[in-house]
Amino acid sequence: MIILNTGNGKGKTTSAIGQIIRSLGHGFRVCLIQLFKGESFYGEQKILVKLGNLDFFSFAKEHPHCIKNVSLDKVVSQCRSALEKLKDLSNVPEKYDLIVLEEFNVALRDKFIDEDEFIDIIKRLSQKSNVIVTGRGAPQLLIDIADLVTEMKEIKHPYKKGIQAQRGMEY
Amino acid sequence: MIILNTGNGKGKTTSAIGQIIRSLGHGFRVCLIQLFKGESFYGEQKILVKLGNLDFFSFAKEHPHCIKNVSLDKVVSQCRSALEKLKDLSNVPEKYDLIVLEEFNVALRDKFIDEDEFIDIIKRLSQKSNVIVTGRGAPQLLIDIADLVTEMKEIKHPYKKGIQAQRGMEY
Repeated sequence: MIILNTGNGKGKTTSAIGQIIRSLGHGFRVCLIQLFKGESFYGEQKILVKLGNLDFFSFAKEHPHCIKNVSLDKVVSQCRSALEKLKDLSNVPEKYDLIVLEEFNVALRDKFIDEDEFIDIIKRLSQKSNVIVTGRGAPQLLIDIADLVTEMKEIKHPYKKGIQAQRGMEY
Repeated sequence: MIILNTGNGKGKTTSAIGQIIRSLGHGFRVCLIQLFKGESFYGEQKILVKLGNLDFFSFAKEHPHCIKNVSLDKVVSQCRSALEKLKDLSNVPEKYDLIVLEEFNVALRDKFIDEDEFIDIIKRLSQKSNVIVTGRGAPQLLIDIADLVTEMKEIKHPYKKGIQAQRGMEY
């Protein structure tokens, strides 16, 4: 299955993390590939690296929208590396039960990775693994081929009342 | 803060689980109170019970909509016990950074717990802890007092294509 978590609301990443914990609880093998998530900024990264049965990769740790002075070429090249990693996974017989591709929707939206190539790869991957793709702005072509699509829709958000991002909640 | 995960889509529970993992990663103390979730049916329960800094309680393990021959009186009485547990938490000086109340929206919708009493308790709890409430059909009074509300909205679901619930994905 191909599963998409998209929309402007909270819960796209945390839901994927919860899904990883659920899968690991059943003894399944999981691969997590994160884009734009830094090294140990997010609380979940500190727990995930300690769990067995989970292979965890992080590419393009800084997104140009969030961190100034990041070279666009470098970001594109790191996203390319992430795509090569995915392609490798699709070509080996080794099988994960679940592959989570964090913020790949954003990389597609920003043209850091090629949509057709990405779709070709995850179509093949989804033959042997469940694949979750997260990030706002999922492209229509991806929605079309997905089996399960959820929009996390913001109904009310405290930023609008001036409350700042909290450690443990937003990161 | 009071945070609500509601809507008819996937990700309400898994997002709360991800939020727990995020908080624990920062060394925060978390309390999870689940309703209608059985004992060790959900994969995440097997991982969560092993994590430090998390107190985990489960009440009313069977919901009458899902399990036949469950006594309604028993369910109401167990939901009452969950509410008493919450009231205790609101009255002691001991503090959790995060309290997650799984499927309490459903218990409110089905009148298993009293809305006014629940709202009074979580208003007090939210003075010292972040409180996440999950479940479809969040009542309007709860939406009104919440700081952050996300609707998990189903855009596409494989059940509609006849694909069955998968271990590791839905539970």
